[in-house]
Amino acid sequence: MPQSKEIFLADSKSGTKGSKQTDFQLVRVKNTWCRIKKDETIHDAENEIVVSQAKISETVSDGEVSWTVETPIYLCYKVVETRGLLDPSNKTLLYGHIRDPKELERALHNKEAQRRFIVIDKTVDDLYGTAVREYFEANLVQCKILSLTTTEETKSMDLVLDILQEVQIFGIDRRAEPIIAIGGGACLDIVGLAASLYRRRTPYIRVPTTLLSYVDASVGAKNGVNFLQCKNKLGSYVPPVATFLDRAFLKTVPRQHISNGLGEILKMALMKHKGLFDLLKSHGKFLLDTKFQSHSGLVDHGDAALKTTRIAIETMLEELAPNLWEDDLNRLVDFGHLISPELEMRVLPTLMHGEAVNIDMAFMTYLSHVKGFLSDSEKAHIIQCMVALELPVWHKKCTWHLIKKALTERLKHSAGHMRMPLPTGLGTADIFNDISEETLERAYILWTSECKNTSAEA
Amino acid sequence: MPQSKEIFLADSKSGTKGSKQTDFQLVRVKNTWCRIKKDETIHDAENEIVVSQAKISETVSDGEVSWTVETPIYLCYKVVETRGLLDPSNKTLLYGHIRDPKELERALHNKEAQRRFIVIDKTVDDLYGTAVREYFEANLVQCKILSLTTTEETKSMDLVLDILQEVQIFGIDRRAEPIIAIGGGACLDIVGLAASLYRRRTPYIRVPTTLLSYVDASVGAKNGVNFLQCKNKLGSYVPPVATFLDRAFLKTVPRQHISNGLGEILKMALMKHKGLFDLLKSHGKFLLDTKFQSHSGLVDHGDAALKTTRIAIETMLEELAPNLWEDDLNRLVDFGHLISPELEMRVLPTLMHGEAVNIDMAFMTYLSHVKGFLSDSEKAHIIQCMVALELPVWHKKCTWHLIKKALTERLKHSAGHMRMPLPTGLGTADIFNDISEETLERAYILWTSECKNTSAEA
Repeated sequence: MPQSKEIFLADSKSGTKGSKQTDFQLVRVKNTWCRIKKDETIHDAENEIVVSQAKISETVSDGEVSWTVETPIYLCYKVVETRGLLDPSNKTLLYGHIRDPKELERALHNKEAQRRFIVIDKTVDDLYGTAVREYFEANLVQCKILSLTTTEETKSMDLVLDILQEVQIFGIDRRAEPIIAIGGGACLDIVGLAASLYRRRTPYIRVPTTLLSYVDASVGAKNGVNFLQCKNKLGSYVPPVATFLDRAFLKTVPRQHISNGLGEILKMALMKHKGLFDLLKSHGKFLLDTKFQSHSGLVDHGDAALKTTRIAIETMLEELAPNLWEDDLNRLVDFGHLISPELEMRVLPTLMHGEAVNIDMAFMTYLSHVKGFLSDSEKAHIIQCMVALELPVWHKKCTWHLIKKALTERLKHSAGHMRMPLPTGLGTADIFNDISEETLERAYILWTSECKNTSAEA
Repeated sequence: MPQSKEIFLADSKSGTKGSKQTDFQLVRVKNTWCRIKKDETIHDAENEIVVSQAKISETVSDGEVSWTVETPIYLCYKVVETRGLLDPSNKTLLYGHIRDPKELERALHNKEAQRRFIVIDKTVDDLYGTAVREYFEANLVQCKILSLTTTEETKSMDLVLDILQEVQIFGIDRRAEPIIAIGGGACLDIVGLAASLYRRRTPYIRVPTTLLSYVDASVGAKNGVNFLQCKNKLGSYVPPVATFLDRAFLKTVPRQHISNGLGEILKMALMKHKGLFDLLKSHGKFLLDTKFQSHSGLVDHGDAALKTTRIAIETMLEELAPNLWEDDLNRLVDFGHLISPELEMRVLPTLMHGEAVNIDMAFMTYLSHVKGFLSDSEKAHIIQCMVALELPVWHKKCTWHLIKKALTERLKHSAGHMRMPLPTGLGTADIFNDISEETLERAYILWTSECKNTSAEA
């Protein structure tokens, strides 16, 4: 037997020690794919030749062959902000996911009965179930509507399998009949995972009904469920075919839940959009009072609701689209999410997700200030804005000990670097690895002394 | 409220009815991504500018905005045919998945203790468990070896969750410690799904120990489990980081299982490689007798085992790599898989997968002949080859009724076209949609009259 270790090392250094590497591209002629060398071309007068973007590189050494396959998978999804989503004349919910204009035309004029499998959160069903049923009835869609309690407590693989059993019984055409999820983040996460597992990938549609899921869970690719008391431990990165956003759902959302969503919007403002921060500063209370139901041209508030959600989604898409599978660990959207997971473990469900995120962001604002990135008045503006959005800016359980523990965890899960997003001004940010414990402690002390009495939890 | 239906139709025809489409690219400056128009460029003398391959296109019409995100995800995996995989001096099993030469160098000289989570099929554990344990011990790897009965009967989400619970208890560094699966197709499918779910994607390694999984399950991206009596109903398309192939495992595989794997190899031969077909014709019995253990330069058989597996994998990679997520439904690798699923439902576990596939291929060979693609002698050569590989070429349960039912199912699952791969000669093929029932029936009658008595099931 040859010295395997040597062979292996030879393989890793192509061209040395007698190993030979050849790079291939893949071309298709008449339904057969064949590999040809990277720089080769083939000619076929009679048939169309298709070149794939996939590559295969082959390394041959004594007794060993290694093939490396590299291929891009194109993920594509739509995010649509519309009005009257449940108005039977609006066809978005049925066909809005179709991108090809010709296919859409066909679908709109198709006389065959449509079928849809819908999962709706129980609370949402109580409020909008009738409208949902009327919509599908009016559009002659044969549907199965599954009403489920979807919370962090029920967000489990068990529920995913319950849904899939119903899908299997109902039967769907995987190519033409996307599964529809209507609800908050938990509902969208559960159904997204179910669909991505069914027959290895079944298209699904997200209809968020809370502000948090409207601007956060809906915009990216992630789905998942809790497992063994760990949040989102199991899941996938398969995006929906489409997310349909309609602010009308927000009118029935409790005030605290609006604050909760505003926390995530503020995150995007602080990281990368001064204009969004100014909108929140000027119209935060108005947005809370009106639950984003205003539509245009109000004397004092203009299109505040429209602008706020639109910028929140645009900035979110900017950060998520280039890094959909989170291969890059440097993520501005992690702002507010370094300490909050640890905090959430201790205070859920007393604090909502966006509230825990905000406490984290408040501390980080002080850290930025101590680092010299934010002036006294910038820091004050940020905290005032948070308070106006009715978000907690301090919490007694967010101790110095907890902060240190959370950041140690962070280090472990982000390949040895802290990768801490911090505001470097109002609406600009960068990512830092070199924060000393002493700086953190100074920030903690200042934060506590100034914010302890500001918070509802004081 | 505006007429939503009109808005929606306007949206689908960009540029008409007052809707406006803008295409954006995404660029990163100092950890912040921002969208700029497709043809714009930005300048920043101080900072590096990274351009993403992701694109966002925005369509604005009266009261509605639609964003379309399109982004490539690069999937990359290695398939390595090696020898002495369990020889402690061979580092392939520990580090062979690492592609970056520098990272590999670091890993090889890393003095820190490694940790690995391994799932091994119970039968394989009985045969190779000691060698596996000695391998990790000699390499000072702290490991958890989970020995499980992995069959079509246990291939369920329950078993996936059992594995994941053990993973969670053991704890792994998701970036550096791939989960390792050692076993046949069922084992690799189950562990692949578990890993792809854990923290939304944890790297895993496949070590196939049967011929079928060596040339088939190992080479692509698919994983999955059975659900509600349906085969592979739940799963994903997340490939392993690496597959490590060592023919030594095949020496303990029963003779019928070697035939089973040869069925899938013959599939690739018939579809696209005359040379592979000739190898099987000349050396089929020898390969069965020696269970692919011969290594080189035998007077009569040369490198038959080496060549056969290598070509089988190369041809498989050619067909799978450009279509890893099966977006294209025209797949030559579906040959033998149009009728066999229906047959398998009736005869499993009496017939093995490769055997059912072969019965399907034998019928299809007759169909090709009736269509005029294969001469009498080519047809005879193929059937003789199948018989020499000890594969069944006919089955009483594969009735005319079953064939029609199976092809109706096929039509339903492949977007309204038959997409039937058929040999058009020895080692060439094409895909057909226009096969009449009359032609099918003529083929069935001829096949039955000629093959009924050839088969072991006659």
